[in-house]
Amino acid sequence: MTETPDAEGTPDPETDPGSPRRGLSRRGLLGLLGAGAAGLAVGGAGGAAIAASVASAAGAGVPGVHPFFGAHQSGITTPVQEHLHFASFDVHDDTTRDDLIALLQDWSYAASRMTQGLDVSASGAVGGSPQAPPDDTGEALGLPAAALTITIGFGPTLFDKDGVDRFGIASRRPDALAVLPRFVGDDLDPLASGGDLCIQACADDPQVAVHAIRNLTRIAFGRASLRWSQLGFGRTSKTTSAQSTPRNLFGFKDGTANILADDADALDGHVWVAESDGPAWLVGGSYLVARRIRQTIEVWDRLRLAEQERSVGRSKGEGAPLSGGGEFTPADFNAAGDTAAPAIDPRAHVRLAHPDANGGIRMLRRGYNFVDGNDALGTLNAGLFFLSYQRSPEQFITVQRALSTDLMSEYLRHVGSGVWAVPPGATPGSYVGAGLFA
Amino acid sequence: MTETPDAEGTPDPETDPGSPRRGLSRRGLLGLLGAGAAGLAVGGAGGAAIAASVASAAGAGVPGVHPFFGAHQSGITTPVQEHLHFASFDVHDDTTRDDLIALLQDWSYAASRMTQGLDVSASGAVGGSPQAPPDDTGEALGLPAAALTITIGFGPTLFDKDGVDRFGIASRRPDALAVLPRFVGDDLDPLASGGDLCIQACADDPQVAVHAIRNLTRIAFGRASLRWSQLGFGRTSKTTSAQSTPRNLFGFKDGTANILADDADALDGHVWVAESDGPAWLVGGSYLVARRIRQTIEVWDRLRLAEQERSVGRSKGEGAPLSGGGEFTPADFNAAGDTAAPAIDPRAHVRLAHPDANGGIRMLRRGYNFVDGNDALGTLNAGLFFLSYQRSPEQFITVQRALSTDLMSEYLRHVGSGVWAVPPGATPGSYVGAGLFA
Repeated sequence: MTETPDAEGTPDPETDPGSPRRGLSRRGLLGLLGAGAAGLAVGGAGGAAIAASVASAAGAGVPGVHPFFGAHQSGITTPVQEHLHFASFDVHDDTTRDDLIALLQDWSYAASRMTQGLDVSASGAVGGSPQAPPDDTGEALGLPAAALTITIGFGPTLFDKDGVDRFGIASRRPDALAVLPRFVGDDLDPLASGGDLCIQACADDPQVAVHAIRNLTRIAFGRASLRWSQLGFGRTSKTTSAQSTPRNLFGFKDGTANILADDADALDGHVWVAESDGPAWLVGGSYLVARRIRQTIEVWDRLRLAEQERSVGRSKGEGAPLSGGGEFTPADFNAAGDTAAPAIDPRAHVRLAHPDANGGIRMLRRGYNFVDGNDALGTLNAGLFFLSYQRSPEQFITVQRALSTDLMSEYLRHVGSGVWAVPPGATPGSYVGAGLFA
Repeated sequence: MTETPDAEGTPDPETDPGSPRRGLSRRGLLGLLGAGAAGLAVGGAGGAAIAASVASAAGAGVPGVHPFFGAHQSGITTPVQEHLHFASFDVHDDTTRDDLIALLQDWSYAASRMTQGLDVSASGAVGGSPQAPPDDTGEALGLPAAALTITIGFGPTLFDKDGVDRFGIASRRPDALAVLPRFVGDDLDPLASGGDLCIQACADDPQVAVHAIRNLTRIAFGRASLRWSQLGFGRTSKTTSAQSTPRNLFGFKDGTANILADDADALDGHVWVAESDGPAWLVGGSYLVARRIRQTIEVWDRLRLAEQERSVGRSKGEGAPLSGGGEFTPADFNAAGDTAAPAIDPRAHVRLAHPDANGGIRMLRRGYNFVDGNDALGTLNAGLFFLSYQRSPEQFITVQRALSTDLMSEYLRHVGSGVWAVPPGATPGSYVGAGLFA
């Protein structure tokens, strides 16, 4: 493997004890052999920990601990956690196919541990040699797993970057995996868009999510670099009927009609890639679309309440459709309003985004609010980090095009965008994306 | 009052129902008359809500609800919450003294409600006219108070800006309230430093803290503007013995030796401004120092564990001083180490920051970790948003100067700075800072 020089020189991962890769790659491969083998190979507490991890992966159901291994990656239908750290990575041009595979193995190994509340490796933050940098950065020491999920995706440029097939996988790119078309309202920052790989880390403690992204970024050293990243809070969706419907920064409930994790028919119909969709390596996976959406909240806040509600098509308090009823009453787009206009405006967000207006299309959303300081005019840099999982990016594209006349979109500006194929879950002894390289 | 024009024109706050100020100033003044009067004036649920607020302020002790009124402002000795939104404001040059007083009254009124889990006004997010913008932006509807505290401070430039006494208070500026001197390692961004006013909003739910800052910023419209702001998570200190010691992004426990809220002698000695300190309007208040400290975590992470521990002077795992014992064992700076050097390096952080090395100086710290994305090189923009309360800024200045040779500071860069006088708490019927304008 060729290292990319950085300001501190070019360490050799095979000889430099300072390279996290050296330790992790070795242990990663051992760990991925399976619980028993890893237990024997690593020994002691480390082995027990890995065994516990795999046991949990089998569905032991410890509260606040989600399995890493399984038919699907966790973090899609997992009850939406309170915090997000999302990261997009560029794989270095001199990284080889084998390096990329090793990176995915190392990430899978570390993720299989961190999601169980363990350090990234058996020696962790303080169990290694005092004369070596610790494998784990340590800020999550003593914290529980906090429902951490780590979800890995592959962007279009991983398969084909400016016509170059860097990793011998161009022929395996799904046709549907392509940079999203330009939409009305797009004002994309290229440096906050795209990326060869992505990792979505969700947890109920932001320090746990940050620890995961930081350590996975560190593990990627010399092979891939952080391209852009985003923290989020205040989940703007729900994936179980037990979760209350949260509010976005426009002050409205968001996610009322989301696909729920126990709605197997809807998941099969709208979220999971089916055998008939192909390719085979992606069956049981999904497509992730991320959009960084700035909300011009200061302008929105000066709208009359009636105009806010007209734009959304729902009441601000209860979140009921303006056609009447409660939050979960289906919207009646034909209901008459107080005037000649229908109760729900023809350009209301709820109407244009509704499955009825889009050939029945639905998506599983799990976006987050964000506030990233303010600009020089004192305007909060705030908005929605939209995340949706769907069986095909075409679902997002269709709905986003339908929203071009959305009244609410006057107060939105899409400044970041990305799409990734999210492989199915890894089986114990393997790694996320193994099918792509088989 | 003169309004500052914005892109949407110049509303007259007395006639424009879209101006948040109009409603809030009126209700603010009523609310500040006291519970009974406000109850009569506002009537119905609004009055009851204000009454409840004031009752709670008297110390009713609802879990997750902190009083706004009291001898000291909440948010100083309050058990450190999990999340921070901090904001610094510039008061407009055409804002009058009366405008400034009205702003502080409006802020106090809104804060006295939001800290009790209420909307910013009696009509709130959805209770006003549909033909007017709501007083409250709504994203905290349905959320509990989440231990919200709102703490207001006055910067040196509020008293004297480039030699101009804008508000007739220059003569009342405490001598100790001055822009901090330059320290070794300072690389300050002027746009992320200073500010005439500051608000520290802490809560256990980031959406509640963000809602508070957003609405207080909105209330300031035409009188003061957001200068800079900072979100934080993962409190890096503790203020009660029941709280566990959290970890900073270097992976070390932080705040082990912090002043605790029940240590009245330490608070009187190190935190609260005494009558002998003066001025009279600040007695029972404190001085807040904020420092935005970038941590070069990627460099730190490559240090040997032994070197990390030498820099800090404590073990990474338990946080015990390197002179031996456990986390709460006092450091023995004379203890011998394995070599000729003492167990705790002469330049270790724990030694240079220790009260014994600084004439007994202590501060009450309540900083937060932050991660604000990454730069173009893939380096996380991460660090510590340091917040300390002290009886005089001189305490911070002395310790910060002592840290100029700190081994740990090689991995720190101070990029933002501010100091504010934090008045004592308001009494029901009054507002924060009333003594300054009496």
